[in-house]
Formats: sequence, C-alpha cells, structure tokens
Amino acid sequence: MRQLKSLFVFFTLAVLPAMALAETTVPVETQFVFNTLLLLIGGFLVMFMAAGFCMLEAGLVRSSSVSTICIKNIALYAIAGIMFYLCGYHLMYTGVDGGYFGSFGLFEVDDSKLLSIEGTYIGEAAKYSTGADWFFQMVFVGTAASIVSGAVAERVKMWSFLLFVVIMTAFIYPVVGAWHWGGGWLKAMGFFDFAGSSIVHSVGGWAALAGLLMIGPRMGRYNKQGKPMPMPGSSLPLAALGTFILWFGWFGFNGASQLALGTAADAASVAIIFINTNISASAGLVAAMIMTQLIYRKIDPTITLNGALAGLVSITAEPLTPTLGEAAMIGAVGSVLMTLTIPLLDRLKIDDVVGAIPVHLVAGIWGTLAVPITNPEAVFSTQIIGIISIAAFVLVASTLAWTLIHFILGLRISEDMERAGIDIAEVGLDAYPEFVRTTQR
Amino acid sequence: MRQLKSLFVFFTLAVLPAMALAETTVPVETQFVFNTLLLLIGGFLVMFMAAGFCMLEAGLVRSSSVSTICIKNIALYAIAGIMFYLCGYHLMYTGVDGGYFGSFGLFEVDDSKLLSIEGTYIGEAAKYSTGADWFFQMVFVGTAASIVSGAVAERVKMWSFLLFVVIMTAFIYPVVGAWHWGGGWLKAMGFFDFAGSSIVHSVGGWAALAGLLMIGPRMGRYNKQGKPMPMPGSSLPLAALGTFILWFGWFGFNGASQLALGTAADAASVAIIFINTNISASAGLVAAMIMTQLIYRKIDPTITLNGALAGLVSITAEPLTPTLGEAAMIGAVGSVLMTLTIPLLDRLKIDDVVGAIPVHLVAGIWGTLAVPITNPEAVFSTQIIGIISIAAFVLVASTLAWTLIHFILGLRISEDMERAGIDIAEVGLDAYPEFVRTTQR
Amino acid sequence: MRQLKSLFVFFTLAVLPAMALAETTVPVETQFVFNTLLLLIGGFLVMFMAAGFCMLEAGLVRSSSVSTICIKNIALYAIAGIMFYLCGYHLMYTGVDGGYFGSFGLFEVDDSKLLSIEGTYIGEAAKYSTGADWFFQMVFVGTAASIVSGAVAERVKMWSFLLFVVIMTAFIYPVVGAWHWGGGWLKAMGFFDFAGSSIVHSVGGWAALAGLLMIGPRMGRYNKQGKPMPMPGSSLPLAALGTFILWFGWFGFNGASQLALGTAADAASVAIIFINTNISASAGLVAAMIMTQLIYRKIDPTITLNGALAGLVSITAEPLTPTLGEAAMIGAVGSVLMTLTIPLLDRLKIDDVVGAIPVHLVAGIWGTLAVPITNPEAVFSTQIIGIISIAAFVLVASTLAWTLIHFILGLRISEDMERAGIDIAEVGLDAYPEFVRTTQR
Repeated sequence: MRQLKSLFVFFTLAVLPAMALAETTVPVETQFVFNTLLLLIGGFLVMFMAAGFCMLEAGLVRSSSVSTICIKNIALYAIAGIMFYLCGYHLMYTGVDGGYFGSFGLFEVDDSKLLSIEGTYIGEAAKYSTGADWFFQMVFVGTAASIVSGAVAERVKMWSFLLFVVIMTAFIYPVVGAWHWGGGWLKAMGFFDFAGSSIVHSVGGWAALAGLLMIGPRMGRYNKQGKPMPMPGSSLPLAALGTFILWFGWFGFNGASQLALGTAADAASVAIIFINTNISASAGLVAAMIMTQLIYRKIDPTITLNGALAGLVSITAEPLTPTLGEAAMIGAVGSVLMTLTIPLLDRLKIDDVVGAIPVHLVAGIWGTLAVPITNPEAVFSTQIIGIISIAAFVLVASTLAWTLIHFILGLRISEDMERAGIDIAEVGLDAYPEFVRTTQR
Repeated sequence: MRQLKSLFVFFTLAVLPAMALAETTVPVETQFVFNTLLLLIGGFLVMFMAAGFCMLEAGLVRSSSVSTICIKNIALYAIAGIMFYLCGYHLMYTGVDGGYFGSFGLFEVDDSKLLSIEGTYIGEAAKYSTGADWFFQMVFVGTAASIVSGAVAERVKMWSFLLFVVIMTAFIYPVVGAWHWGGGWLKAMGFFDFAGSSIVHSVGGWAALAGLLMIGPRMGRYNKQGKPMPMPGSSLPLAALGTFILWFGWFGFNGASQLALGTAADAASVAIIFINTNISASAGLVAAMIMTQLIYRKIDPTITLNGALAGLVSITAEPLTPTLGEAAMIGAVGSVLMTLTIPLLDRLKIDDVVGAIPVHLVAGIWGTLAVPITNPEAVFSTQIIGIISIAAFVLVASTLAWTLIHFILGLRISEDMERAGIDIAEVGLDAYPEFVRTTQR
Repeated sequence: MRQLKSLFVFFTLAVLPAMALAETTVPVETQFVFNTLLLLIGGFLVMFMAAGFCMLEAGLVRSSSVSTICIKNIALYAIAGIMFYLCGYHLMYTGVDGGYFGSFGLFEVDDSKLLSIEGTYIGEAAKYSTGADWFFQMVFVGTAASIVSGAVAERVKMWSFLLFVVIMTAFIYPVVGAWHWGGGWLKAMGFFDFAGSSIVHSVGGWAALAGLLMIGPRMGRYNKQGKPMPMPGSSLPLAALGTFILWFGWFGFNGASQLALGTAADAASVAIIFINTNISASAGLVAAMIMTQLIYRKIDPTITLNGALAGLVSITAEPLTPTLGEAAMIGAVGSVLMTLTIPLLDRLKIDDVVGAIPVHLVAGIWGTLAVPITNPEAVFSTQIIGIISIAAFVLVASTLAWTLIHFILGLRISEDMERAGIDIAEVGLDAYPEFVRTTQR
C-alpha cells in the first residue's frame, strides 16, 4: 500500500502537471530543452547572416571600399551585442505593458524562475532559458543594423557610422521592438509581424533612408544631367556567397521565431515556416530574373540576387499561414516591387549602394501588408497603422541621430578622401593590395 | 479507487501505445520532434551545399564566366524548389507502389494524419512532419542539378541551362528517385543506396555527360593535335571554400538520411554516419594528394579538392555499415578512380570544366558497387542492375531534353560571344570589373 | 490486481531508474539523444572552423601563397581526422587514469555498453554515443593544427608541414589532451580549461612558436636595420569571412563542450556559454579597434579581426561561470594583450604571418589564468602549473618534431622558390592565374 502511495505522489508531482500543460505528451522539461535548442540553432544561423551581409556588401561596393565595409559589418554585429546587453534588451522587453518602451538596465541571465538552485526544472509552463532568449533577440538587432551599412557605403566615416549603430541598437530598434514583440501598444492593437518584415527590415530600411537623404550620393554617381552612372560591384561571387549565406541564415530567422519546438504541432509549424521561407525566396529570385530579362533584355545578376532577398523579406511577416503557392506569390510580388523601386530611387538621386531600400524597406512593407491575405486574425488597417508609425518614428529618430553625429564627428569623408577611396582614408589598408585595377585611384 | 482508475486510463491511452512502439523509452511525440528536427537541420545543411557548388564552380571557371556560373547556381536551386513543389514530390513519392513513377499534382503540407485539429500528436508511429519531409527531399533535387552546372560551364546559354534544370528537377530526378526512395521497382528488387551515390550523384553525372557529349568542349580547350590546353580556374580560395562548404553540408546529406533521431539507436546511427562520411572525405583527399604527387610530381590543388568530394560521393551509398577503416578505404578508392578518370576524359575530349564526371559519376558508381562489401543485405548484381538502369534512363531522358532545348533556344552561345566571355554575353556584367586580367578578352 | 502488478513492473524497470538519475524529468534515453545531438551539431560547427582558418589565412598571406595555404588547411583537417582514428583518440582518452597518456590502437565505434543488440538504450546514466564523442573530439584536433599553418605560411614546404601535422595530431595534442580531458595528472590536480584556451589554442600556439623559431622570417620581412616591412594580405574580405566563420563555429566549440543538453539545467548552461562566448568576441573586437585607433591613429582591419578571435580564445577556458559583463572584460583584456604582443614579436623578428601567437597563445594563456576570477573552484597556482607544463612539453616535442622533419625532408623552400612564390614551387598553380598583380614575382 505504501508503494501505491508513493506512486500517487509521483503522479501528482511529476506527471499530472505535465498533463495539465498538455494536449501534448512531451514532458515539460523536454519541451524546455527543445525550445532552448531551437533558439540556439536559430541564433547561430542568424548570427551568420552578419557574414552574409558582409559578403554581399563587400561584393557590391567598389574595390576601394571593401576593407571599410568588411570592418563596418563585423564591428556593427559586435556593437549590437554589447548595446543590447547594456540597455537594448530591457528597453524592448521589460515592463512595456502595452506602452512605448520598457526599462533601462543591464541584462543578466536569470533562470531562477525556471530552475531550482540544484538546476531542476521548476518552470510552470514550457519555456526556454533566458540566455537563449537574449541570444536569439540579440542577433536580430545585428541584422537591422547590417541593413544600414550597405546603403550608405563608400562615403560615410567609419566612426560616425558606428556611432549611429550604437544609437540604433541601443534605442531605435529596441523601442520599435517594444511596441510589438515587447508587448507594447502595437501588439495590443493587433498588429502582426511574425519575424520582422517591419520590426527588423523596415526599421533598417527607414534608418538607411534617413541616412541617404542626409549624406547624398557618392561622387560621380549621377552625372551633370542627373543620369545614373553605373558603378558595378567589385566581386559578384562574394555577393552571391552573401546571398546564399543570408538565405541559409533565414531558416533560423523565421523558423526559430516560432519560439517553440517542444510539441509535434510546434515542430510541424517550424517545418512549414522553413518551406514557405524557401519558396518565397525562390519565387523572388525567378521573378527578378524574368523582370530584368524583360526590362533590360538581359538577366541582371545583382538584381537577381536581390530578388531572392526581397522574397525572404516579404515572407518574414507571416511565414506560417500561407500555403506554398501563396508564399511563392508573396515572394514574387515583393521581388517585382523591388525591381520597380530601383529606377525610382535613381530618379530621386538616392544612391543606395546595395539596394537596401528596395529589398528591406519596400519588400518589408509589402510583406507586412500581405499578412491579412493569409492570416484571418490580421487586419489590413492595423497593419497600415503599424507601418506608418514605424516609418514616422524611425525616420525622425534616425534623422536626429544622423544630425547629432554630423555635428559631433561629421558624416562624410572629404572629397579628396572619397576620390582616393575610403579604404585608404579610413583604415589605411587596401582590401586587395596586390591586384592591379582599372579604377586605381 | 477512482484515482486508480484514472491512472489506468492514463496508462492505456498514453503510456502503453508508447511502449508498444518501443524498444525505446522516448515518448512517441518526442520522437516526432526529434525526427522533424533532424530533417530540418539536415535540410539547411544540404541547402547550403548549393552555396558550396556555387563557390567551387566560381573558383574553377575562368574569370570571364564567374557571373554567369554564380547566377546559374543560385537560380537552379530556386527552380529546383519550385519544380519539386509543382510536380516533383508527388511524382517521386505518391503511389509509386513498386512501379516507375508516382502521380502528378502540387505538393501541399498535410499533417492531418499526424496532428489533430488542436495540434495534438495522433500519429500511430513516430514520424516527422510532412513539411520537414518535403524540405529535406527538395534540397536533394537542388544538389543533383548543381552537378550539371559546373560540367557544362562557360559555353551553355543561361536560359537553355535553366530550362534543362526545369526538366531535370520536375521529371528526370523524381522518376529515378521514385524507383528507389519512392518505393518503386528498384526498391522492390533490393537495390541499396542510402543517401544517393546513384540516385543523386550519378543522376547528376549522367545528365552532365549527356550535355557534354552534345555541347562539345570549350573553344581552345583542345589544340589541333587534340592535346588539352590548361585553363586554370580563376580563384583557388573560392574553390577551397566551396569544397569546405560541401563537406560541411554533407553531414546533413548523409546524416539526416537516417530519417530518424528519436531513439538512442537512431542517434548512435546518425553519429556513425557522420564519422564515416568525414573519414571517407579525409581519405579521399589524402589519396588524391598522393596520387597527383606520384603522377604529376606535384600536388595538384584542384584534384586534391576533388579528392575530398570523391570520398564524400563514394561513402554516400552506404555510410552506416562500414567501420571507420572501411569507410576510409571506400573514400580512398573512389578518389583514386577519380584521378584516373581525368586523363581519360581528356583523351575523349570531353571537357568537364569542374570534374563533375570523375567526382559525381565515377565515384557515385563506385560507392553504389561498394555497398555489398559492408552491408550483407545488399547484392552485387542488384546494384549493377540499378546502376545500368539509371544510366540508361538518365542518358536517354537527358539527351532528349538537351535536344529539345537545342531546337527551342539553342544550347551554345556564339563563337564571338564565347571569345568575349560568357558573362558579357549572358548577364552583361563582369564578375570582377575593376581587376586587370592577363586574359582580358 | 494483475494489471496493478504490471504497473509496478513498469515502474521498477522504466520509471524508477530514470528518477534515480533525476533531479530531472527528462527520460534518460531522451537525454542520450539530446546529448548526442549536441555533440553532432557542435561537431559540424567546429569542423566548419577549418574553413574559417582557411579563409582567414588565404586572406592574410600574399597572393603568391594562397593556393598552398588553402591546400594545407584542408589537408591538415583530413590528416587530423585520420591520425585521431589511427592513434590519437585512445592515446588521449583510454586508460589515462591520472597519468600522462592513454593506450595505443585504432578507434572503432562501440556502443555495446549503451545499446542492446536490438538497439534499445541500456546505458545506466545519460551519456552520448561513442561515435558522436569521437566526432566532437576529432574536430578539436583539427583546430589545434590549423593554428600552426597560418603562422609558418609562405615558406614551409607542403609535405614537411603535413608531416608535422601527422606528429602533432597523433601524439603532441593527444598527450596534452590526456593530461586534462582524458583524466590525467592535470585533471587530478584541479586544473580548469573548459573548452581549450590551453589544451587547444595554446598547444597550437606553442607548436607554431617552435616552428617559427626554427624556420625564421620570410625573405624581406625585416630589412637590414631589422625594421619590419609591411606585407599586407591578399584579400581582406576573405580574412573577414574567415573570422565570421570562426566566430560562428565557436558556438559549437564552447557550447557543445558542455557535453550535455539533456536537462533544463544543461540547456540553460549551453545558452549561457553561447552568449558569454559572443560578448567576449564582441568586446575583443571593439577593444582592438580602439587600441589601434589610439596607437596607429587609424583602425587596423587585420588587428580588428584578430581582436574578435582573441576574445573568443580568452573566454574558451571558462565560458560558463562569468556574467556577461565579466565575459566582455575577459575578451577585452585578451584583445589588448594581443595588440601589445604584435610589436613585441616584430622586435624579436618572429614573423608570424597571421598573428597566431598573439591570438591563440597569448590570449589562450590569459584565458586560462582568468578562470579563477569567476570560477571559485579553480586555483590560480594550478592554472600556472598547467600553463607551464603545457608550454614545456609542446615546445620540446614540437622542436624535436620540426628538427626531425628538417633532417628528413627539409623545412624551408629554396630562396629562389620563395622569391618566385611558394605556390609555383609547391603546387604549380597560381591561386589567381588571370589577375595582374603589382607584386608579380
């Protein structure tokens, strides 16, 4: 009888709580491990996207700017991590409660609500470790900052750019993040953005646009008649590699944004997100090939690569509810909008070196608008409110930041420096010192 | 007493079915999550192999063909995903029943046999989500198509090549896949090919060979005496990077082909597959170094890289049953056969730019033949029947496809275009526009 | 009543053992799968670090040495795997028992203590498969050897270097590994080195230093007055890519060194290791930027990249116990020490092409010394004993090895060869044959 009793004790303490959670037979602690693992895998994949942006941008700038863009890209990832530790995380997540931003303070791991002192799992529902949560959110900050670096390449001072990154990753991005993912007012309104078509990609795009408007085009980019002069990138294979790395990392970006892998239903959802993300990129790439063949009579390699990225950005706001066919359409439309934006920017003399505005801003807006097409819970008008609010806040905040930096450090290298190539000016090292170039400056 | 009763109910509904599955104590739903996770991880690793092929081929073609090969490689991956959605998957997997191919129709995710409407797991045995299954199978299609692109590089029209990819990924590959992995006639006969030495690599190799025979060598590749003229690749570091990425991705290719990770036995099997795959590549690389040192008096860097790939292809048909020593031997033999095939192709004036035939076709055949050495269930004669059938079907189907394309679009760029470099002809963008080259054409 | 009995039988056989393990509710077999999966994921990430070293070194050597360094780097990974199979594993792990090294013999997978003949899990405690264990340990050997290749680049004969790799991966590294991770005398003393600041990175650094002292600097590296002449690397983007890949792979290097993922506590620990590793790299990179800005008045791109690596090496000895702030400080100090070591080496005319000594040796020592700051179980004096013992053994053993090789094959290519560039001498293939270079030799 005593053994029976201990059986009951075991059930009451260990099995029944698990069943209460249920509609799943996976033990809660196992779920905790799965969820944490998902965030860690997703996190390292998104971290590697920083390498993807670096290669993409190193391939698309001219050879005299490659050293600078490489250092900018790795430095911004480093800075994003430090600022998200120093203040970004709590500003985005702690105590937002339907409002506009959270609290200030250093992030430190605290698993005490999840684990006993001996390390036993005591969380009431399946979650993930606080360290894994921070990791996964931190790598997203890096992505938003990466988007800016390519747009303003070849002419912005290194330290000025990095100071902008400090402001963006410590304040601008976390505040927008707080509105939605931190449980702020946009969340309360019913705004939908699964993995960040707006929260990450449009934020990066608006910040880049604010910078471009202040900094102006590269010298010689538009001739006296205002016609754009081609400035082809230095290495197409590096640009292609960067695109592949971004595509690869995007499985983590969207897939792990499910934030849970502990049940069959969650695992199946992650899988759907993977394949929708993939086919949206595929359709975006094919659409860009066809568009450039029709418009320019030849496939444009750079726009083709950007087509895949536009597809990825487009599906990011809602990668779970579309069917494969719908996901392909969403990516293709995003890519077509991207190809149409490129000549428009040239007409406005906005010199976006890598195409960050068409890819991240335009396709990001499209992706956010497209959510209600497949997700019945989303409302078109709320999506528009979100898009406009984010645009207003990021444009204003970024313009303030760029202006502040303009007065402290200056934004742009001197004309002489720009003529000589930014690498010599800013880091004193040519990226390819032994190779003879036609454009040696 | 009532509580006891509810205990019984719990056991009968939840624990006993799990035990029935058993010989494992992992709950079935946990197994479902593990299996799905394996396919997702394996899938993103294999997806990244497309980047590996892109870098390998970008490094091994001449600089005037790099833009085109990069766009070809990313476009073929995109197209493979779309075609496998439009018709490849069902052609390969649905209703093959010992026959030659499945049914036609779009693939859409359907987890209704695995999950209840509320998302609870109801599958009777541990499986994986249908989305994860599609993802993992889809990335394999991309691999098969990647093999072709390098072989026929520098002279085939972009759109002609992509049309071949459409046919190959929609029909040719799925039909062969149906014969074995789809449960068709080869499976019924007892053919063994664990992860695709034949089904993927030889299929790619035969399709490439059919193309090479129709298209002919690059201009100037063989002089008037028929002697091969060296046309070294444009960037060895990109070729090395590509090889590393392929090696990295192959852990997913072979490891996740176990299709299950949910029990200790499956996890241990995946680990064995990892280390056999790795040591086969290592032995292949070392064998190629030694072979080229002996034959050419110097290590040949390109052949050395291909040695690792030949090792990887060789072990792919059976990475589980060999010991580490046997796996090393299988890889070394595959690599030696690869090195011996290269001069043979030159004697036949078959101009395989990246070595796709020696690596994927020859080592693929060897790997398929080697299965019975370590796997007692495999029969040598059945393996040969499989190899010959695949050869016949793919050669005929590919030749028909290349011929069809020849009449619709033409296969080869004009001599003038080829002299100028395919990049200018096909995409209008030099891959390295600023770098002065000795071979400027 | 009979059913009740079978319930008891089930509990006694299946549930109670699991609970005995406990303080966790994850079934033991599930833990086995998680732990094995952690080693497999960690293993493929660390394997990819070989590609990172290859790109880093290909970017930092001059263009006439790129083919050779690429082949060296992929070949050393291949050889490391073969030697660890032939004798390294058992020398490091089997029967060390507080002593100096283990036994000799081939490694073969043996899961018979973990799995029954039918594949059921029968291990008494949660562990991982022997194959996964071998895989994860093997990739570490490759890392240690990679460190040497960059330091001695551009002048060491290919086969001589590879023979050193054979000796290092078969004997030198496994013996040091046996002292600590194999359960040898350093472990018994209470030495702490979580993932190998000393066991891997310093070992690589000492072996490189022994080689550098014997081989001497590159021709022309120091002028007649002993002043160092700059020899900038051939491709900064490849160096940046390599750094990113190493950073990416380091999540596996440190994270999977937890060796367990099966409980909530382990998963939370792996997450902490991830974020400490990341912020240490970030702080190292930022510290190097600031240091070079202060010292040289410009950001030095190469040293900046090495700053991230110094941060990674520094945190490797103890990535679990520091807070995020402490981890950042540890990385920053390691990076500062690295920047200060570079001019010191030049004063000593030690020509370390890629900075392996400052990054792996100096930061490795610092990381080992820093363990007691955050881990109360570690003792400063024991850490010093470990550092000195490893220094003495590796310096002596490596010098013997280099000397032996000097007499068998010679160490250095001829002056004529070096003037012509090592690629032509050793592999007969220029890495960039079509690109015109200012330094054409």
